[in-house]
Amino acid sequence: MSQIWIENGLFITMDETRPTLRGHMVVTDDRITYLGEEPPAMQAEGVQKVDGSRLAFLPGLINTHGHAAMSLLRGYSDDQNLQVWLEQKMWPMEGKYVDRDTCAGSALAIVEMLRTGTTAFVDMYDRMDQVAEMVEQGGIRGILTRGVIGLCPEDVQEAKLAEAIAFAREWNGKADGRISTMISPHAPYTCPPAYIERFVQAAHDYDLPLHTHMSETLAEVEQNERDYGLRPVLHLDRLGFFSRPALVAHAVHLNDAEIELLAEKGVSVSHNPVSNLKLASGIARVPEMMRAGITVSLGTDSVASNNNLDLFEEIRLAALLHKGVSGDPTAIPAMEALKLATVYGAKAIWQQDRIGMLREGMKADFIAIDLEQPHFYPKTDIVSHLVYSGSGRDVRHVWVDGRQVVHAGECTLLDEEKIRYEAQASFERLLNG
Amino acid sequence: MSQIWIENGLFITMDETRPTLRGHMVVTDDRITYLGEEPPAMQAEGVQKVDGSRLAFLPGLINTHGHAAMSLLRGYSDDQNLQVWLEQKMWPMEGKYVDRDTCAGSALAIVEMLRTGTTAFVDMYDRMDQVAEMVEQGGIRGILTRGVIGLCPEDVQEAKLAEAIAFAREWNGKADGRISTMISPHAPYTCPPAYIERFVQAAHDYDLPLHTHMSETLAEVEQNERDYGLRPVLHLDRLGFFSRPALVAHAVHLNDAEIELLAEKGVSVSHNPVSNLKLASGIARVPEMMRAGITVSLGTDSVASNNNLDLFEEIRLAALLHKGVSGDPTAIPAMEALKLATVYGAKAIWQQDRIGMLREGMKADFIAIDLEQPHFYPKTDIVSHLVYSGSGRDVRHVWVDGRQVVHAGECTLLDEEKIRYEAQASFERLLNG
Repeated sequence: MSQIWIENGLFITMDETRPTLRGHMVVTDDRITYLGEEPPAMQAEGVQKVDGSRLAFLPGLINTHGHAAMSLLRGYSDDQNLQVWLEQKMWPMEGKYVDRDTCAGSALAIVEMLRTGTTAFVDMYDRMDQVAEMVEQGGIRGILTRGVIGLCPEDVQEAKLAEAIAFAREWNGKADGRISTMISPHAPYTCPPAYIERFVQAAHDYDLPLHTHMSETLAEVEQNERDYGLRPVLHLDRLGFFSRPALVAHAVHLNDAEIELLAEKGVSVSHNPVSNLKLASGIARVPEMMRAGITVSLGTDSVASNNNLDLFEEIRLAALLHKGVSGDPTAIPAMEALKLATVYGAKAIWQQDRIGMLREGMKADFIAIDLEQPHFYPKTDIVSHLVYSGSGRDVRHVWVDGRQVVHAGECTLLDEEKIRYEAQASFERLLNG
Repeated sequence: MSQIWIENGLFITMDETRPTLRGHMVVTDDRITYLGEEPPAMQAEGVQKVDGSRLAFLPGLINTHGHAAMSLLRGYSDDQNLQVWLEQKMWPMEGKYVDRDTCAGSALAIVEMLRTGTTAFVDMYDRMDQVAEMVEQGGIRGILTRGVIGLCPEDVQEAKLAEAIAFAREWNGKADGRISTMISPHAPYTCPPAYIERFVQAAHDYDLPLHTHMSETLAEVEQNERDYGLRPVLHLDRLGFFSRPALVAHAVHLNDAEIELLAEKGVSVSHNPVSNLKLASGIARVPEMMRAGITVSLGTDSVASNNNLDLFEEIRLAALLHKGVSGDPTAIPAMEALKLATVYGAKAIWQQDRIGMLREGMKADFIAIDLEQPHFYPKTDIVSHLVYSGSGRDVRHVWVDGRQVVHAGECTLLDEEKIRYEAQASFERLLNG
């Protein structure tokens, strides 16, 4: 049994019964076993003590949409029209990926996420075995899925679906339970309807949730209407997609009826504000979705359209953007914005009983932020400071499952220098290969 | 004579004749005296050498609108309607300020700005002697102005105007030339027309530029039309405001004719995207202004509506926001966004011959960024990395006028711990006083 005692910390619990608390937290193995104002009644022998006096502790952040291996393409193509970016830049480079590139890109992403306070991330890509192995090594939590583009001959479709199912079955629950899996047709515009139905069936057969891209661009919504006579939400609903627990990424272009249907079906949304702005896709109707009762969470999307994985930026942008667009300065207050990346993030991936909150019995996924910095003064509203002035660079320590994975800003389980070197080598190979 | 030799650095010069350069830079006293790929022909004796091999150097950032002393009000009131925020929260607290509060708030702001790479800032507030003294101590460059609200009896108006002129005359060129001054009626909606004309006259009399808030909210534009039968731009033009060099903050609500007039008159604009979103004021028409030839620069506004002074955030948001709003992913590319905070910032404050660019003969105001971090890998487009993935926290060293004012992330001329302590003490006094 291993125990950690955080002494005299400021805890942002995200638990509505006591949102902030100055006191003590004890972690026993992978769980929070005590959290209170008074010191715990326990022997201090054999316990690792952490001085929390200049730190704020909060639940690890949850990134609900991304493609980690694309971190190799950071800065390779910016400020381009979507089709040029995708067809002339991304696809040719991605087409050259071999296992070690996926591995190098995922490792770089995991280092960046851990250092900036993300302890759980959704990843949709191919060569997912490589991603899963990096999750295992890095100590992060991963919700992983082999995303499948179905614009290919039937035998290739068949093979990809089988691969997606095999990956999901093999890795679900692995890495001491840190890995869970989903099934993912890439998007309604990249998968024929009958093929999407096969994924829905597989999700039923193997009791897995579904993840997909949906209504990211106006063009894609219009194409869906031309091709199938329906907008994407109703189209997916008709294919049975929402008969399973489902997480959809983007959801930028929704009408009122679609918001209502998603709420009714309990579909969760990954809002990716930076990526949506950078690719000029538009601005999701987040306040309306939240008012309708949809669980909205935050994702970075890949580094190729962001270009970083610091979830604090998505938190801040979500808080700022929807005020400016709606004309309502009370839209998405600071605490709601922080919930998007913690409690709502956990709910979006059906793990609200394990993560996203600091509470006795929950998994010990938490981060420590250095408060003794000018941008956190004067000490007024800590939640406001974190949302409007904080950054992933303020994260000092990170624990996942009770294990310290970042110490003093550096990953403890990964060789960061080697990972930077290998990312560079992979990129150069892809560029010149 | 003091000399600094930066060896083997990556220089983002912002000079179109050679935008990036791997090589050497020599600073002699307050000026850049050499910049080139080859090592300089000089004796190394008595020269301070800086190993630039893991650093990127760029011109110090220029923040063209703010109220430094309001840093004391960080997190004191967020997510409120504008009138509640202003009338029930900001004004009562500001009304209690005494000199030491202005001093404490300005010092905190200067620490935060220097550490995040801002080397020159525009400040409009009262008790400006205190601000100027902190600029002198901290080693930063300040473009300072006593902002005057004219909704008061004539004798008070008279006294305020006299104070504004006295400050501008006394401090212009002080602190080894690091301080320059302007004249500022606060805004068209807070100063009667005849009173604004007095400022214009003073600007002519003492050869000073003008600064004001303009068209920040729709309500203010509508009020201007009701009160004076004109929108703010034409109103100010009729009052002679644009007959002097003028910098206007916000400029959110402009029609085509107003954009054209501002361009024609050579008025520069301080775009404050974070503040405009946070207060739900709206989104300025930046691409249109830039196409019309207006010099657009970036400002944070005060911490009370931001809530931080990291100009990298404004750079990134300017690059992202206008893509998303315009639907054009090529709007404001990375290099243009970086120019907003450097060359255009310098031009907006009429100092383009001195700062905003790394070039022989220019003032040695520059910053060094640590490149050996995961979010700057792989090494592809450094300008893209800085804009889309960089942060003020990546700044390691800062020089102003050839003097190092930040070393390894800490201010060299200011006692940061004391400043944090005094900011806290001032805030608590204001709250309980």
